[in-house]
Amino acid sequence: MPELRKDPIIGRWVIIATERGKRPHDFVVEEEVVKGGFCPFCPGNEHTTPPEIFAFRDPGTQPNTPGWQLRVVNNKFPALILQGEPDRQGEGMFDKMNGIGTHEVIIESPDHRLNLATLPVDHFILVLKAYRERIRSLAQDPRMRYVLVFKNQGRAAGASLEHSHSQLISLPIVPELVMEELNGSKFYYNWKERCVFCDMIRQELQQGSRLVEENEEFVALCPFAPRSPFEVWILPKTHHSSYVELQEDSLAQLAAIFSTTLKRLHLALRNAPYNFILHTAPVREPAIPYYHWHFEIMPKLTLMAGFEWGSGFFINPTPPEDAATYLREVHW
Amino acid sequence: MPELRKDPIIGRWVIIATERGKRPHDFVVEEEVVKGGFCPFCPGNEHTTPPEIFAFRDPGTQPNTPGWQLRVVNNKFPALILQGEPDRQGEGMFDKMNGIGTHEVIIESPDHRLNLATLPVDHFILVLKAYRERIRSLAQDPRMRYVLVFKNQGRAAGASLEHSHSQLISLPIVPELVMEELNGSKFYYNWKERCVFCDMIRQELQQGSRLVEENEEFVALCPFAPRSPFEVWILPKTHHSSYVELQEDSLAQLAAIFSTTLKRLHLALRNAPYNFILHTAPVREPAIPYYHWHFEIMPKLTLMAGFEWGSGFFINPTPPEDAATYLREVHW
Repeated sequence: MPELRKDPIIGRWVIIATERGKRPHDFVVEEEVVKGGFCPFCPGNEHTTPPEIFAFRDPGTQPNTPGWQLRVVNNKFPALILQGEPDRQGEGMFDKMNGIGTHEVIIESPDHRLNLATLPVDHFILVLKAYRERIRSLAQDPRMRYVLVFKNQGRAAGASLEHSHSQLISLPIVPELVMEELNGSKFYYNWKERCVFCDMIRQELQQGSRLVEENEEFVALCPFAPRSPFEVWILPKTHHSSYVELQEDSLAQLAAIFSTTLKRLHLALRNAPYNFILHTAPVREPAIPYYHWHFEIMPKLTLMAGFEWGSGFFINPTPPEDAATYLREVHW
Repeated sequence: MPELRKDPIIGRWVIIATERGKRPHDFVVEEEVVKGGFCPFCPGNEHTTPPEIFAFRDPGTQPNTPGWQLRVVNNKFPALILQGEPDRQGEGMFDKMNGIGTHEVIIESPDHRLNLATLPVDHFILVLKAYRERIRSLAQDPRMRYVLVFKNQGRAAGASLEHSHSQLISLPIVPELVMEELNGSKFYYNWKERCVFCDMIRQELQQGSRLVEENEEFVALCPFAPRSPFEVWILPKTHHSSYVELQEDSLAQLAAIFSTTLKRLHLALRNAPYNFILHTAPVREPAIPYYHWHFEIMPKLTLMAGFEWGSGFFINPTPPEDAATYLREVHW
């Protein structure tokens, strides 16, 4: 019998098709083949991107020249612009403001052939550190309320260039889904005086059936009511509302579990496209007792997203318990 | 300068890229070609679908034989099953229930080559009438709280069979996005003592810049803060919370405006795939003063849906004022 399950944070119901549970090879995944050709993100082509904002590079090398391990540049086609004030105003009953903000690209590695599932763990640490540094830096701008970090891996997930990169958008507003999480987790906290994410982690560690991986500080799990097959969340085991609180020695542990999780997805789902999004507290908020930062990874295996984001109603053909089992069984 | 705009009903902010506004031919649309081959929805193949639940057919013809104009059958691979009770229960902190409900397919016409943009208006009336009749009938089941009517047109929008059809799911819960609309419009009503949709329609008719089409009873418009380029909503001009209240003589007017709107989209966007969803009040609710039924049509022109439904944050490259202008200018 199929099950209806409720997400404990925002209260969204999803259908989990427990009977016709789809296995990894039941999904038709478009094979992503590295095509090559001219790439503005490859070393030697630094002059073809907007100037470098931030980089990890070899001592003595100049900005916008080769010798970097990771580079951050402005998006050449930004969705937002930096100059100006939000200038909130009405248009009759409607509300609008200027689209101020930043839109940056994090070029994760000089090697065109690598992606986050194949990148060495030591290098993955640099990527996670770059997220933290850029959020910290952008949070200085008092006009901005949120910094959204995300990655589109593969053309079908929205990546327009194949050289592996993440994106970062700073915004004068808090995105809808983060707002819902903040409201939902506050509601839970007001009732229970406990963080809903901490409660969830405790139960998942006890039950074990939806666990993908854990280490001392982090856990990777398939959530109880996932919208998409093989959806995986990565969360710190102890309570932290903001990603920028992440300490140096935790970065290595996060890189280890994130890298292994992406490798499991990569191998189980034959290099399927995916999106991941960092969910963290709005910038400049003091530590929030009810919110808990985490990454949400969503492989793009089904075509239904159009209908589903239009209705807010999701049908997931793979129970998270099955997905977690498949992912745990991947060996390399 | 790009704009951030807030949806007046649920409060979601979207980025509208006003500067680099994409025109219809800027989108890479995968051409949908009718492939033919064996089709279970074509006349003569009635025995290959589950039995007929409802039909409009020629007098004297038998169920599950040719002679029909429109047929409703159960989905051969339903996401929900009809037998049983919801049986709500907990699993530690999580909530779940049995996935009871129905999943029906509305085969809109016997002609494999037609779709809703090319179907004669007289026949379109039958489709809209079938929606109403099926919702009325399914609302009799006291276990069900909502009936979701939607259509996936084109493979990229999730249609697995090319013969034009709609789908209908009855559910023991109210989908997330409808819940948000109910909450948002109630909040507005409590403050203003007016329906937010009625206010929106009044302003749109005055401003005119986002209007696509209107007739005596209905209006088709591009909403102020659309998630997707060329998103169009169709709403009744007078206040009605539920689609089942729709009277016989209104069906013809709705069919006329819906048909013309889809034709405009079809021609402007070169047969692009789309989804539409009927947003109506939960079943068995008495008339609600703050909710207003409507259709939301979302062409599938961009690949970003994965990231966007994962973050709740939408970047729309076509201002609705431009989209409405393009759609008004379509001639045939």
